[in-house]
Amino acid sequence: MTNPRRVTFYHAPRTRASGVLTLLEELGADYELRTLDMKAGTHRARDFLSVNPLGKVPAIVHGDAVVTEQAAIYIYLADLYPEAKLSPALDDPLRGPYLRWLVLYGSSFEPAIVDRAMERDPGPQAMSPYGSYDAVMDLLTAQLRKGPYLFGKRFTAADILWATALAWTTQFKLVPPNLELLRYVERFRTRSAVVRAEAIDERLHRQVEGEFEHRTG
Amino acid sequence: MTNPRRVTFYHAPRTRASGVLTLLEELGADYELRTLDMKAGTHRARDFLSVNPLGKVPAIVHGDAVVTEQAAIYIYLADLYPEAKLSPALDDPLRGPYLRWLVLYGSSFEPAIVDRAMERDPGPQAMSPYGSYDAVMDLLTAQLRKGPYLFGKRFTAADILWATALAWTTQFKLVPPNLELLRYVERFRTRSAVVRAEAIDERLHRQVEGEFEHRTG
Repeated sequence: MTNPRRVTFYHAPRTRASGVLTLLEELGADYELRTLDMKAGTHRARDFLSVNPLGKVPAIVHGDAVVTEQAAIYIYLADLYPEAKLSPALDDPLRGPYLRWLVLYGSSFEPAIVDRAMERDPGPQAMSPYGSYDAVMDLLTAQLRKGPYLFGKRFTAADILWATALAWTTQFKLVPPNLELLRYVERFRTRSAVVRAEAIDERLHRQVEGEFEHRTG
Repeated sequence: MTNPRRVTFYHAPRTRASGVLTLLEELGADYELRTLDMKAGTHRARDFLSVNPLGKVPAIVHGDAVVTEQAAIYIYLADLYPEAKLSPALDDPLRGPYLRWLVLYGSSFEPAIVDRAMERDPGPQAMSPYGSYDAVMDLLTAQLRKGPYLFGKRFTAADILWATALAWTTQFKLVPPNLELLRYVERFRTRSAVVRAEAIDERLHRQVEGEFEHRTG
């Protein structure tokens, strides 16, 4: 009999989806991995567009339900495995801040990063989703100052989203690589599920690269 | 004794916060309203920045918890009032799609709209959070085709976020005002809680305008 919590995970190595791979490993979740090759454009292929017409990974399918958008996937999966304790329960005082930080990633942090990377203005205050780049960075650094995680000693799914993102954004200098952020990322990367997920991601990356070279060589 | 579910709602009329006002009315929620005057810059004032350093409304405070970011606020409040049935329960098959559509608003739809309004490119596919403007509009129109609401007959908090946004984005032609979207908005605006919230919002808008003229006149 199929595990009723089993999900299908549409993944591409070294992308926004890599954090969800880590989440699934942290949760000890039962999942079927479907790896897309971003270079070969598989993510735009007809069969994946029928899952997510925006052509983006990560995406998960659970039963008939399709879930896309990073924050939605994190909230959904962490609630699906309450025994992993990566999600504050509905009546936990941390529930609101947890939702806030998960959503803030895509609706404020990413727009700030994209504008910075493309060297364009944030737009008028009333229209900008995030205010100013500096305000977002200050908010984040202040939140992590409490440490060791976003919500102090308690590690949640929100840390997986943020630490994964901060690993590459500090590396590419899209985020100032200050000591607070770097320590947060390093601490995160010592977790056994994170080490495991990184190894899986690298193996998949080499497979995809190998297949690409085979096809085009 | 204070109602343990009472929240403080930081609002500014005719802004992104107006949808949350509607949500609170739909939920029959107990809330204390704090109206900010965007023109006068109260939202940047020190006391509000201590609530949300990004200077954005909506924001809510429940006990010691601060919740910002529209999707987070909708998810949180709708779960806080399960008897209003605006939120699919954790084990409801609609839970994943519900989270997806709430998050998609801020992480894909708004960036697409802002880029369109500012006449700028969406950026390279790997960096863009939404793919293409047309893909987002097609996805939305296809979802609403089932009707009468986002998830068929079932009205949820996600409809409040989307219908409120589509009312002004179709008006300003940031979204093609096709018949499907306009009917959706019109249907939404006949709901008694929506009519009530719109009246409150307009009254607050006139108050704020009056105070502004009084100060500057």
